[in-house]
Amino acid sequence: MSTPASTPDDSLGHLVRLLGQNGRSYSSQELGDLLAGIAAAPEGFEGPAWLELVSTDPVLRQALVTARNELANNDHGVIDVIPPGERATALRKELARQGVDGFLVPRADEHQGEYVPLRAQRLAWLTGFTGSAGMAIVLDDRAAIFIDGRYTLQVTHQVDTELFEPQPLATMSPDKYLTENLSPSKRIGFDPWLHSINEIERLGAACAKAGAELVPLEANPIDMVWHNQPPAPLGPVVPHDIQYAGVAAETKREQLAATLRASQADAAVLTLPESIAWLLNLRGNDVPHVPLPLSFAIVNAGATVDLFIDPRKMTEAALRQIGNKVTVHPQATLGAQLDRLGALSSTVLLDPATAPWGIAARLQASGARVLRDMDPTALPKACKNKVEIAGTQRAHRRDGVALTKFLAWLERMVVGGRLNEIEASDMLEALRRENGLCRDLSFDTISGAGANGAIVHYRATESSKALLRAGSLYLLDSGAQYPDGTTDVTRTIAIGQPSAEMRDRFTRVLKGHIALATARFPVGTTGSQLDALARRPLWQIGLDYEHGTGHGVGSYLSVHEGPQRISKMASTVALRPGMIVSNEPGYYKTGAYGIRIENLVLVREAKTDGGKFLEFETLTLAPIDRNLVEPSLLTQDELAWLNAYHARVLRKLGPRVDAQTKAWLEQATATIA
Amino acid sequence: MSTPASTPDDSLGHLVRLLGQNGRSYSSQELGDLLAGIAAAPEGFEGPAWLELVSTDPVLRQALVTARNELANNDHGVIDVIPPGERATALRKELARQGVDGFLVPRADEHQGEYVPLRAQRLAWLTGFTGSAGMAIVLDDRAAIFIDGRYTLQVTHQVDTELFEPQPLATMSPDKYLTENLSPSKRIGFDPWLHSINEIERLGAACAKAGAELVPLEANPIDMVWHNQPPAPLGPVVPHDIQYAGVAAETKREQLAATLRASQADAAVLTLPESIAWLLNLRGNDVPHVPLPLSFAIVNAGATVDLFIDPRKMTEAALRQIGNKVTVHPQATLGAQLDRLGALSSTVLLDPATAPWGIAARLQASGARVLRDMDPTALPKACKNKVEIAGTQRAHRRDGVALTKFLAWLERMVVGGRLNEIEASDMLEALRRENGLCRDLSFDTISGAGANGAIVHYRATESSKALLRAGSLYLLDSGAQYPDGTTDVTRTIAIGQPSAEMRDRFTRVLKGHIALATARFPVGTTGSQLDALARRPLWQIGLDYEHGTGHGVGSYLSVHEGPQRISKMASTVALRPGMIVSNEPGYYKTGAYGIRIENLVLVREAKTDGGKFLEFETLTLAPIDRNLVEPSLLTQDELAWLNAYHARVLRKLGPRVDAQTKAWLEQATATIA
Repeated sequence: MSTPASTPDDSLGHLVRLLGQNGRSYSSQELGDLLAGIAAAPEGFEGPAWLELVSTDPVLRQALVTARNELANNDHGVIDVIPPGERATALRKELARQGVDGFLVPRADEHQGEYVPLRAQRLAWLTGFTGSAGMAIVLDDRAAIFIDGRYTLQVTHQVDTELFEPQPLATMSPDKYLTENLSPSKRIGFDPWLHSINEIERLGAACAKAGAELVPLEANPIDMVWHNQPPAPLGPVVPHDIQYAGVAAETKREQLAATLRASQADAAVLTLPESIAWLLNLRGNDVPHVPLPLSFAIVNAGATVDLFIDPRKMTEAALRQIGNKVTVHPQATLGAQLDRLGALSSTVLLDPATAPWGIAARLQASGARVLRDMDPTALPKACKNKVEIAGTQRAHRRDGVALTKFLAWLERMVVGGRLNEIEASDMLEALRRENGLCRDLSFDTISGAGANGAIVHYRATESSKALLRAGSLYLLDSGAQYPDGTTDVTRTIAIGQPSAEMRDRFTRVLKGHIALATARFPVGTTGSQLDALARRPLWQIGLDYEHGTGHGVGSYLSVHEGPQRISKMASTVALRPGMIVSNEPGYYKTGAYGIRIENLVLVREAKTDGGKFLEFETLTLAPIDRNLVEPSLLTQDELAWLNAYHARVLRKLGPRVDAQTKAWLEQATATIA
Repeated sequence: MSTPASTPDDSLGHLVRLLGQNGRSYSSQELGDLLAGIAAAPEGFEGPAWLELVSTDPVLRQALVTARNELANNDHGVIDVIPPGERATALRKELARQGVDGFLVPRADEHQGEYVPLRAQRLAWLTGFTGSAGMAIVLDDRAAIFIDGRYTLQVTHQVDTELFEPQPLATMSPDKYLTENLSPSKRIGFDPWLHSINEIERLGAACAKAGAELVPLEANPIDMVWHNQPPAPLGPVVPHDIQYAGVAAETKREQLAATLRASQADAAVLTLPESIAWLLNLRGNDVPHVPLPLSFAIVNAGATVDLFIDPRKMTEAALRQIGNKVTVHPQATLGAQLDRLGALSSTVLLDPATAPWGIAARLQASGARVLRDMDPTALPKACKNKVEIAGTQRAHRRDGVALTKFLAWLERMVVGGRLNEIEASDMLEALRRENGLCRDLSFDTISGAGANGAIVHYRATESSKALLRAGSLYLLDSGAQYPDGTTDVTRTIAIGQPSAEMRDRFTRVLKGHIALATARFPVGTTGSQLDALARRPLWQIGLDYEHGTGHGVGSYLSVHEGPQRISKMASTVALRPGMIVSNEPGYYKTGAYGIRIENLVLVREAKTDGGKFLEFETLTLAPIDRNLVEPSLLTQDELAWLNAYHARVLRKLGPRVDAQTKAWLEQATATIA
């Protein structure tokens, strides 16, 4: 379907010859595809590890790097022979050819991850919309794009709203839209790989209400008409060393297999790449900011694993690491393996919230019994082991050093009001990368000055970037990927003299942050039970914030990792020792300023009661801006917490920073009486 | 199946003759059945209203009362020709006759209510267990009784544990028991009227896991072998006056019908008697403490109602009240009406959490489409109108007067330590009944001295009753049914000098109570989000309480009314203006003392913010024991709340009590500095 991108024939031919001289035999087509896949992966967690996929011969390095970079600079997603305005028409023609009256275009790929490789950015190709969540529904006579409150403005800039009517999710869900816009006997197609089981059941019920029907399609109609669709990324897969992982992959496999046997399951299909990366102690480089290899896996009750991944991604070290109990299969053979499980009448565990509907359908069609349950790696992955806990504590000290250096630098630089948001976040990134262990940022930094700080998921661009001016607040939410831990921290800094209102709101956010940081709670408590503790000081004056209070965090994996969270949304997943979660209440005044105070915290047993109560240990180490604290709003206990936290920050970071930064840190962490 | 209880033939013949002379024609059988039904109803909310069901002729009154009382004194539930030890054997014989290998015996009746009429106390008949929740499973070679933590002791006293193995629900659910104890192809019977749709789907899945099957039975096998089963209660149905109800039944019917039309439903089946009582502005007298008439109803989208109720229960006033849009049918014709809905291919709304499985099955079998949704009266019933709110405020002043008089009396009486729990609660009941508007208690008073206070659902008996001794705490949880409102209040009183630990724990419970009483929260917040606010002061020292923090309360209806609640259990039902909910954190030290502080609160819009935030108004008026308050543990805000609350109690109740009580109240509500 997709035409592989190509490098100029002559340089490719030259490389093929050079490789042949080094004993590696490729056809031009093979090498071209390989380099195109490598180019479709992000710059990289593992530096030049991708070169290993081809050759480590030093003679070849420069030529390979040049060829790869040439490919990577192609703008796959946007350039196509079909101009944007005609893509919906081309899609509708294809839908007619496949005999359906409409099609669902989600933002997600097969793995339901936060980051989607270029190849799977079908929603962006079709509509131009590049937000991190959204969905389009194309019917024969109309089409809609569904977006949440973050993207109401962006969608009007990116999307032709004559072709795709924007629908705010708060007032119109895809379900409701289907029920209201379909007439009886309409057939709406969907790609069975791109939607979870739960999602298709919900959307299918919505179609049924209108007498219409959802129909799985063999071939994604967008892929059929997207001529220049990029190849799947070929990021190199590398081992995640035991010194960071803490538990051997073999042990994890055995424990997971025991869990399966206890549930009378013969196998589980893992569809989340982070689950597979955790289980096999592998890391990869297929999407930005998260070191995971896109892949599927079948874990068998006998503790063997079938790993479905492009074999070209597997480095020698990764193959050594997985050993002989893990078999690598090309991704295209997953379907056949599902049929095999069906032929054996296997009971197969599948997470209905995340697994593609098509996997469940294929299993059931071939005779397997699907056991619906949470991804069996979710809880063991979320509960960090001792090595991972020690790692994250180290990572947080290292990260705190970089952030503290930055904050000291910032105080000097903002005088005069000439620093902008991008210069600030670039400096922070540079300081993080100074220590040599920072593999990447853990997400795109949110660097929001003044009114930009009130945009919760703001990303500074050349056209939007604001200056850090006196009398405003600066909100900085950032994090890094270290092999021993993933960080995520937000600080709000007063530039010049803050107003009394800013101090009041900041102090209320701080009170909420402290209420959560000091909370003790019985075993079995969920994050949704604790959420109100963080909001209460704002609620008392009729204010709130429209985002969750905390998300789970991975260990050199995704900075957003379930199943735990702290939010208004009801949850049945209890907080457990070893879980890492963010503590990030905020307050946003549209057009004026944003406030957020975010530390990562670790769930641990409370010390005084014999294991029935839990509490949080704050991991993040960085000063909280004292200029924004209004002490008269704090209780004695709250003030004591702040002073003790600052004393700890000074004790841990002071010896690790330069003299100039240390002098600044001493002032920034001085006791408030 | 059941043999109707009978009065001596001669007195019955005499009554039949007297009634005939008054123009009311009954056969002996008819009059005997009627009086037996009346006798099976509790003493009564409506005093002699039941006499209206037969005759209001003064000549007949004494004779009828005598005949009724004679019947009521029969001990239906316990006496039977089959002795308790042989009932399981008789049941198993009947199961074999019906061709099943086991049977589920829930505590519930068809209406899933908290109180079950004598006739439906099948679990008690079979096992002897009289707790308010529980279930037995009888298999051919074993049987189990499932009970929660409240009843682990009681079950061993009441039940032959050789016949019925007690299973604590915390470690063994009926689901798990079925999966573990059934062999393939076993058929387990159940009464399709006694289990909700959700329950049967859950238990059915548990049987299926073992390869076994749940089978609905036409006739309840216990009814087939229970020779002396009492008749259904015939409590008189009376109007709930508009001066209390606030909104006419006709208006409620019209609004409910509009809701049904909006959901594209043709009808809803209401199976909860409180829903029907609310909708039709009727009250009844079939079970203790809740003035509801056991009944079913079908509400049609055209705003007519089919009411399924024993016509003998309907007083003339009730018939006038319901008007000609509500048709009374004998309960036995419900099935035929469901078939009629099916024949019309109707869409019928049914609440899967409470509606009998048998109703859904019959509807579907006859061709209807079942729309699963929350009981459509639940939210409008829960959100009290202005008249109901004014009524509950009056009822709470009235109730506060009685409780305050009691507390003043108690302080005089406990000196010497000779007062016992039953004498105390009897005095409180007498003071409540003094005002003439108290129709009943709203539940059995919990009067717990010392260690008995630590038993959360304690009920004092002649054998358990303890003295209120110096140095102990006395926990008193009670309430009343007034026509304008239902009350529920708990106070904990120090008898003599409390220990420092008692004061500490009490003050922490009070801090939690105040945190909830003063909470503001955005529209959309559920009770489960607020629950932790009430627990936090205990959690911080590793303590907790094992019950919910708040339950909804009806308006001259059930003291426990959903759908709102404040508890650890996840909830999707937001708190809305007009809802009444209890605020009752506690702390229990087994073997030593119990503490609970309970006020009812009303949800209302917060005054300062334009309708986006809600808050609570405390309804209950009664002093909180100052002797148990440790002021050093309270913040200034908390102390201010307590003093303001006490000032309000004095202002509202002071003018309504006698001089002696007023003098006591002034001390009891004095400002704490």
